[in-house]
Amino acid sequence: MLKPLLAETIGTFWLVLGGCGSAVLAANFGGEGNPLGIGLVGVSLAFGLTVVTGAYALGHISGGHFNPAVSAGLWAGGRFPGSQLIPYWVAQTLGAVLAGFVLWQIMHGRADVVVDPTSAGAFATNGFGAMSPGGYSMMAALLCELVMTGMFLVVIMGATDKRAPAGFAPLAIGLALTLIHLISIPVTNTSVNPARSTGVALFTGGAPLAQLWFFWVVPIIGGVIGGALYRWLMHQDR
Amino acid sequence: MLKPLLAETIGTFWLVLGGCGSAVLAANFGGEGNPLGIGLVGVSLAFGLTVVTGAYALGHISGGHFNPAVSAGLWAGGRFPGSQLIPYWVAQTLGAVLAGFVLWQIMHGRADVVVDPTSAGAFATNGFGAMSPGGYSMMAALLCELVMTGMFLVVIMGATDKRAPAGFAPLAIGLALTLIHLISIPVTNTSVNPARSTGVALFTGGAPLAQLWFFWVVPIIGGVIGGALYRWLMHQDR
Amino acid sequence: MLKPLLAETIGTFWLVLGGCGSAVLAANFGGEGNPLGIGLVGVSLAFGLTVVTGAYALGHISGGHFNPAVSAGLWAGGRFPGSQLIPYWVAQTLGAVLAGFVLWQIMHGRADVVVDPTSAGAFATNGFGAMSPGGYSMMAALLCELVMTGMFLVVIMGATDKRAPAGFAPLAIGLALTLIHLISIPVTNTSVNPARSTGVALFTGGAPLAQLWFFWVVPIIGGVIGGALYRWLMHQDR
Amino acid sequence: MLKPLLAETIGTFWLVLGGCGSAVLAANFGGEGNPLGIGLVGVSLAFGLTVVTGAYALGHISGGHFNPAVSAGLWAGGRFPGSQLIPYWVAQTLGAVLAGFVLWQIMHGRADVVVDPTSAGAFATNGFGAMSPGGYSMMAALLCELVMTGMFLVVIMGATDKRAPAGFAPLAIGLALTLIHLISIPVTNTSVNPARSTGVALFTGGAPLAQLWFFWVVPIIGGVIGGALYRWLMHQDR
Repeated sequence: MLKPLLAETIGTFWLVLGGCGSAVLAANFGGEGNPLGIGLVGVSLAFGLTVVTGAYALGHISGGHFNPAVSAGLWAGGRFPGSQLIPYWVAQTLGAVLAGFVLWQIMHGRADVVVDPTSAGAFATNGFGAMSPGGYSMMAALLCELVMTGMFLVVIMGATDKRAPAGFAPLAIGLALTLIHLISIPVTNTSVNPARSTGVALFTGGAPLAQLWFFWVVPIIGGVIGGALYRWLMHQDR
Repeated sequence: MLKPLLAETIGTFWLVLGGCGSAVLAANFGGEGNPLGIGLVGVSLAFGLTVVTGAYALGHISGGHFNPAVSAGLWAGGRFPGSQLIPYWVAQTLGAVLAGFVLWQIMHGRADVVVDPTSAGAFATNGFGAMSPGGYSMMAALLCELVMTGMFLVVIMGATDKRAPAGFAPLAIGLALTLIHLISIPVTNTSVNPARSTGVALFTGGAPLAQLWFFWVVPIIGGVIGGALYRWLMHQDR
Repeated sequence: MLKPLLAETIGTFWLVLGGCGSAVLAANFGGEGNPLGIGLVGVSLAFGLTVVTGAYALGHISGGHFNPAVSAGLWAGGRFPGSQLIPYWVAQTLGAVLAGFVLWQIMHGRADVVVDPTSAGAFATNGFGAMSPGGYSMMAALLCELVMTGMFLVVIMGATDKRAPAGFAPLAIGLALTLIHLISIPVTNTSVNPARSTGVALFTGGAPLAQLWFFWVVPIIGGVIGGALYRWLMHQDR
Repeated sequence: MLKPLLAETIGTFWLVLGGCGSAVLAANFGGEGNPLGIGLVGVSLAFGLTVVTGAYALGHISGGHFNPAVSAGLWAGGRFPGSQLIPYWVAQTLGAVLAGFVLWQIMHGRADVVVDPTSAGAFATNGFGAMSPGGYSMMAALLCELVMTGMFLVVIMGATDKRAPAGFAPLAIGLALTLIHLISIPVTNTSVNPARSTGVALFTGGAPLAQLWFFWVVPIIGGVIGGALYRWLMHQDR
């Protein structure tokens, strides 16, 4: 019982440290406008690779969710027992907060760092409206996070289906997360993962923390819809 | 009968939402000339990853075409029954238009958005001549879309051949779409997929809609040539 | 006998059209200095993906060399019959020249295109000294092409070894070509492939054509060294 | 006994030549601020691809460590005999220094090259404090290299576990190295590999050489912690 929870904590730690870490430390390297920095392509790649690598390494222990919305979606899809939901959510959130703490320490090893919690996307936080990197409304953010998390779960359910090619699921799922970031960073800084949002918002406080409820409610609803949609799809023609 | 059509609708929805969505929302993030934006590399990656992820998730249900030109090419290659062509085309186009609708809603969640249908590539539409992102002529666009769709089908036919390594086809096919975009976005904004062109042109109207026939005729002819070429190749030496 | 040669022609066509096409059409899209363009990262990715996709599609027919230096290296490594070398070289060169022709046509579909054969890297040609993109000397170019082609063959020999994981060779080999381009485009515009150099130099004429001998001699020697090195390595401890 | 050591020398040669070579030759191509250059995304990709390709090619001979911290971590994880540690370290360091030598020769084939060992990251060297590319303190560098190498070993141990999907380990491990670079180049120019640090510091001398002890001690401790952590994790619930 302890082993899968520890694996979820380690995997979610890696997801937040790697994804948010690349955004905080390297996206704007050399100053804004400097093409040396990794930009949104690099951040998207980093988020995806945390899941590719984490799922190949730890997936055989815990299933490799690293995301409360994924656990919820797999439950809705009939692949994960409801009794494990809360323990998984706690383990994932712990890992995310630990990653936020470590990243906060590394970031402050640079003398001139100031985190402004009123600035959209500061410390890789998620947000909508005034806190959206591209200034997108709450409704656009809602639609975007809902559809992205929903399709994420369709990919997860399908790629781990017995009928899909064996062994490729971590690659497909991780690259789906890269794809989701390539699309939606401008809208909400891309959450689709309540633990990831929590792990950084706790450290900035302010507006990102005030909007945190949104990034628990919407991705979990989106994930549940996606998991249920795939399950429904597989029951057609029967 | 319904299940594969639904899978094609969902998969083509993902292709258009992800590929065109990355172009519309993230390519120029931070303003044109800002290296934070994902640029053509990011858009190329996004288009390819929609197919990598969609084909691993849904390929075991419908074959994972997500593209009328692919269905046509597989028919020409002897791998897909002609009786299924029209239903697949309808399902794919529906998914593409639904994606265009969702993307249109998200995009307009930003206050300052204006889509100018006389501007080449607006809302990720395809075009030639004055509507080509790089100003390429209709003849260059014809040659480019023909060769790209043809080679796309050669890769699809070859990678799904019984003699090719099992399980890698979604990866090879998706990355072929990334490659095609890395080459040809400047020429036509890259179609090789009539459904993808339709899903966005319906919303801009104007010149992209007036040129839409071209992006049905040319990719389908290219796909048929590619499918037939691979079939012919495999019958040499027999 | 004809089938593998046709596969090599098609595969090398794809390599040159995709790799050089991305460089010619998309690397500087939007004008030099515009981050929308795919830059050297995009070109490196494109070259690699031509081999990933071509080798999954056609590797089961011809082995998927698409490169005279690879055929020579595999012969030196004891994996390819010497009697097939010349036919493979002819088939590969034909495909490359055909790709150069098609790319030349597409490129000239834009009104303002002028190819200046005295400019380093024009039409994606390879060169050293004054024709090196970064101004590297002939000796540096020699060392670089020798080591890159040598290590390319080590990867090819190793990844296709019976003891290596089955099915991953096209991925490993294609990504090795991406890696090689990430390192060495500034030095020689990266050849490691005589057919690829020929396919574009024939169309520019001038200095790239005068230096073409170098990109036949050096990659072939490098490939032979690499193939022989791996063979020698596997005979240690026996 | 000789064969695996030679494989480690060749593989570490490839890692340093490819990773550091892309940084030295191509990261700033066209002048600083020119988006044609491959930037930190390209360098991160190159480092990862040296391991993807090297491990598919040579992993069946030596295990494909190419890194003294990896060998140490695998020993701590119970997967590698302590008696082989020193021979592996020597072989790896030899390959790294040979790569530094070759890269130094190629780089100086350009007339205007000057390496300033007081400049952070010169010749792709690692450093902290004044020698950190982003000006990060020694404590931040310590925390960063410790956590990155530790998580690198967790991924390596997990992806090569009998329970993980077979054949994907080189891909997962190489992409983990890409991810690590996407995060941490600004902090220390990313070592996580004492041989890689040595291979370039020997040629610049000065501050990078004076700080070299740090990039032996910290990654090895981090690797040992990571290997032991995974081993401990697998013994829970038993």
